[in-house]
Amino acid sequence: MEKSELQKEKIVKVAQGLFSEQGFEATTTREISRDVGISDGSLYYYFPKGKREILDTIVHQGIESRTVVIDDWFTEVKSVPELEKQIINLYERICLIFEDEDSYRSFMITIRERPLLSDSQSDWLIEVLGNVQTKLAKELDTIVGQLKIVKSDFEDATGIIVSIIQKSLYDELVLKNNKVINNEVKQATESEIHLLMQLIGV
Amino acid sequence: MEKSELQKEKIVKVAQGLFSEQGFEATTTREISRDVGISDGSLYYYFPKGKREILDTIVHQGIESRTVVIDDWFTEVKSVPELEKQIINLYERICLIFEDEDSYRSFMITIRERPLLSDSQSDWLIEVLGNVQTKLAKELDTIVGQLKIVKSDFEDATGIIVSIIQKSLYDELVLKNNKVINNEVKQATESEIHLLMQLIGV
Repeated sequence: MEKSELQKEKIVKVAQGLFSEQGFEATTTREISRDVGISDGSLYYYFPKGKREILDTIVHQGIESRTVVIDDWFTEVKSVPELEKQIINLYERICLIFEDEDSYRSFMITIRERPLLSDSQSDWLIEVLGNVQTKLAKELDTIVGQLKIVKSDFEDATGIIVSIIQKSLYDELVLKNNKVINNEVKQATESEIHLLMQLIGV
Repeated sequence: MEKSELQKEKIVKVAQGLFSEQGFEATTTREISRDVGISDGSLYYYFPKGKREILDTIVHQGIESRTVVIDDWFTEVKSVPELEKQIINLYERICLIFEDEDSYRSFMITIRERPLLSDSQSDWLIEVLGNVQTKLAKELDTIVGQLKIVKSDFEDATGIIVSIIQKSLYDELVLKNNKVINNEVKQATESEIHLLMQLIGV
């Protein structure tokens, strides 16, 4: 990484800490510069639009890094139990992502500062969730003969799967403000996925 | 309502507007007092602990008012299609709650200022969701003969139903920052509920 890239990274990292602890509004660029150990002028050299541009970068990087992990995950399945195993692995991998301090912070900043973000950023986030559904639907298609549901139900079925996973993350991270997904919650989520798989399999 | 109650209500309402527009941190008690048209001393007479106490009141009132609407809703059902109809009615009623400006604002403040709230408040919120599940399980029990699932699956089945509903609210209100649940999202949610009901019914 170039020196200027490293400096930008450092600014983003420091700002991420401050935004997640005290909120975006209450953080000044002066504070960020001071903690990085640079002048306020230098900060504006790297981020001409200041605090808002740093916020955009945090959110963008966060969604992107989480997406890569998810996109990477899907492989072709041959049976309903195999699909179930894969979905549960995906869920556990998503839980792990949030146990990483950086991912947790950027997620929380995204949720809390949402009114400041552009619609294109939230469209992108929604698209990421939609992509997970599309990929799951493709897997359902490879085992369609073993299913009780028909192709036109795939979107609803994958929507339900994504809902189950999302709910547990929101309950734990957003509502309960936990940094790690509780084991009991994980078990309940996996149990719900198991029931759904039993219901859709012949 | 007594005069002092009315005054408290007014303070809460004004603070709700300011917190939801500019955030809790960026709002001062001086600003709240000014917009209500009282002295800062008067504000502390009604809320001795200041801004934090007002925040607690907003969150508490919000959850309570939303809970009453939900609690009220359950009636005994006699068939799977009847249960489906009731769940969809409940969902539409929940959507309507958030179309009310006050409910929307207090919900968004609860999400955004969560790190400032006590754990007991979030436990209470989680309990509300748990209560919905308990009530749904009771209804499943009345039609157990018409179901493919056994009693030990009820918790998972009701967990899935609550997940489907919750996801649509989070996607619309929190991620997309919409004040009204989009009709397409409503239809997708209802379609997912329909699929699940078809799968659990004999």
